[in-house]
Amino acid sequence: MSDLKTAALEYHASPRPGKLSVELTKPTATARDLALAYSPGVAEPVREIARDADLAYKYTGKGNLVAVISDGTAILGLGNLGPLASKPVMEGKGVLFKRFAGVDVFDIEVDAESPQAFIDTVKRISITFGGINLEDIKAPECFEIERALIEQCDIPVFHDDQHGTAIVTAAGMLNALEIAGKTLEEARIVCLGAGAAATACMKLLISMGAKVENIFMIDRKGVIHSGRDDLNQYKAVFAHETSRRTLADAMDGADAFVGLSGPNLLSAENLMRMAENPVVFACSNPDPEIDPKLAHETRPDVIMATGRSDYPNQVNNVLGFPFIFRGALDVRATRINEEMKIAAVYALRDLAKMPVSNAVCDAYGIDCLEFGREYIIPKPMDPRLITLVSDAVAKAAIETGVATLPYPKHYPLTSVDDVFNG
Amino acid sequence: MSDLKTAALEYHASPRPGKLSVELTKPTATARDLALAYSPGVAEPVREIARDADLAYKYTGKGNLVAVISDGTAILGLGNLGPLASKPVMEGKGVLFKRFAGVDVFDIEVDAESPQAFIDTVKRISITFGGINLEDIKAPECFEIERALIEQCDIPVFHDDQHGTAIVTAAGMLNALEIAGKTLEEARIVCLGAGAAATACMKLLISMGAKVENIFMIDRKGVIHSGRDDLNQYKAVFAHETSRRTLADAMDGADAFVGLSGPNLLSAENLMRMAENPVVFACSNPDPEIDPKLAHETRPDVIMATGRSDYPNQVNNVLGFPFIFRGALDVRATRINEEMKIAAVYALRDLAKMPVSNAVCDAYGIDCLEFGREYIIPKPMDPRLITLVSDAVAKAAIETGVATLPYPKHYPLTSVDDVFNG
Repeated sequence: MSDLKTAALEYHASPRPGKLSVELTKPTATARDLALAYSPGVAEPVREIARDADLAYKYTGKGNLVAVISDGTAILGLGNLGPLASKPVMEGKGVLFKRFAGVDVFDIEVDAESPQAFIDTVKRISITFGGINLEDIKAPECFEIERALIEQCDIPVFHDDQHGTAIVTAAGMLNALEIAGKTLEEARIVCLGAGAAATACMKLLISMGAKVENIFMIDRKGVIHSGRDDLNQYKAVFAHETSRRTLADAMDGADAFVGLSGPNLLSAENLMRMAENPVVFACSNPDPEIDPKLAHETRPDVIMATGRSDYPNQVNNVLGFPFIFRGALDVRATRINEEMKIAAVYALRDLAKMPVSNAVCDAYGIDCLEFGREYIIPKPMDPRLITLVSDAVAKAAIETGVATLPYPKHYPLTSVDDVFNG
Repeated sequence: MSDLKTAALEYHASPRPGKLSVELTKPTATARDLALAYSPGVAEPVREIARDADLAYKYTGKGNLVAVISDGTAILGLGNLGPLASKPVMEGKGVLFKRFAGVDVFDIEVDAESPQAFIDTVKRISITFGGINLEDIKAPECFEIERALIEQCDIPVFHDDQHGTAIVTAAGMLNALEIAGKTLEEARIVCLGAGAAATACMKLLISMGAKVENIFMIDRKGVIHSGRDDLNQYKAVFAHETSRRTLADAMDGADAFVGLSGPNLLSAENLMRMAENPVVFACSNPDPEIDPKLAHETRPDVIMATGRSDYPNQVNNVLGFPFIFRGALDVRATRINEEMKIAAVYALRDLAKMPVSNAVCDAYGIDCLEFGREYIIPKPMDPRLITLVSDAVAKAAIETGVATLPYPKHYPLTSVDDVFNG
């Protein structure tokens, strides 16, 4: 058994199973305390909420509570192992939500016989929560599930495998292109993979300025183009007229490569075909589409990101979802709209460029890196994330009219300058 | 605004909304910690659970996690106020589960369009949990909901409003009858109310030896008897041939009265009709079926219990559900069967008779009461509850073959003598 395997199983099993517990936040020592927490005192908040549903946010934990929900059909890179096997991942997501943004999470594993049964189930329990984070649900079912739940629930519903990945990828991509001396509007981008994450990444880049005719998305059958008649509605969005058919065709002169596919699918030969200062996001995990060492040997001018923490520029969803929900919950947003996602992208992009003092780096145990090829994406331990990203999301919610509170409850709205100087 | 109302609302709102939070139980300070808690380490327990579903109990919080689930159709004595308004009660139940038995609770409020939709929803999310506590669901729907879920889930499903109330009531009843010099087998019992709690109480008493022909259950139309053609299947169980029709008829010579109905429905005149040493359980809350002061003035020989904490002999569900689930979870019981319920009854009955030292009373802030008319039911703060009741339930689960672990994980199996002497 490998060292990581042994350590991971031990971590989950000891000294007690799992990674989370539910704890009391109010006094319960005396009979009087319990008369307030439960009968007869609890009748008072019940009556208040029956009178005005909004008061659930005042008298219960709803407003800081997110459900992390999965059917286990696409667990990490492991595939469809069923809902019960997804529980450690969902609890892990809860750990990250709490650790990075103070959000309480109930993980809910759903054993549903159909996407519609999953939708019905989540809809019926949704009033329990302030937000819903969908996780590890396979494509294309995840698209319909997310669409239906956004429509039917009055709280934010967010499929992190799609939008969290897209947001962090887009932030890194903007910085990588800047360093390469290129723009999103002109960049020719190859996307290897056409699943939930890939389509969400490309859609977000398009909504931020990338041109659909410059994007070459590649599924198992090759380049997605307008001559194909085997495309579902989610892939068809990316079809345009082109004579390119293979990965090699697509890579010819490409400015950027985004891999959300599998290990070692990008060869040195194909990397050689790219334009100067090629941007390579090889996000397959744990084994990237191309080994970073090989990539740098092949193209010393490469600007590279991976999904791994042991190389520079890790595309890590934890940079996104805790703070996106923090911002959305703080202004009690009814949804997480495109403007809020883009605000998170810009905040992450800007944060990588903001110098930080050695004292702060020491205090938080983070590397004091300078913006450049080796540092285009913030580090998860950066203490400025919660202020900058959450505030940016909250501000965007307010500006687009989906917020129902005027100001964040927990974090004062501040400018980037305030945080940097403060 | 009354003092209690003000204090209860303040308690729920400040310093943060609600009464519970989700907390981390494992280290998360370093990048290494997070690599174990989430990607890539989390893949290991995922694979293990996919291989053997039982390992979910080893690597996740499932085994100590109970869902407290309601549709809000019968909230406390307040009625059908909807699922959202039930949230403070469900969170309060979570507080009691944790405070008294260390059980983690996710409260889930379900907005279901039908009992079948509620059943389907709970069934689909049930794999998340180690047990399900149904709460505040109106009769008769609650009977079918509980029956279906017990059948469809492989974890304990327990409707506390029925069985928790029944267990605590039965424990007190056994002691009250003993003091009155009577037996359950011979006692004539009047039950005012025919809802979920009332029917469960009488069914449990019958399964412990009470005779159905000695029970007079009274609904809005009077005594339930075999001549009535308006009885649903749940009430029909209690019908027998009798010429008694009214509460006054039924009370004539009755040994015990159990009120699970409404305030002040038992008059002094009707109390006068009862046999000597009448047992009166007036459980309507906050206002009992008869004021205890009036009852004692009317019948100085009365042995009385209520639902209130400010009178002797409080019938309080918190004496049951935390410890029943603790025992069931500790041996990973697949259900909570009749034998386990009866084991809890006997443990509670016995505990009221076990003297406790002044030192223990002082340490736990409990009154050192002696078994008798004023003390027939243990107090919620009694520290022996978790050992005695949980162990009794666990033992019964093992003896009846519904346990899947040989010994409790948290509490050593001990005899009553061990606890008492230890």
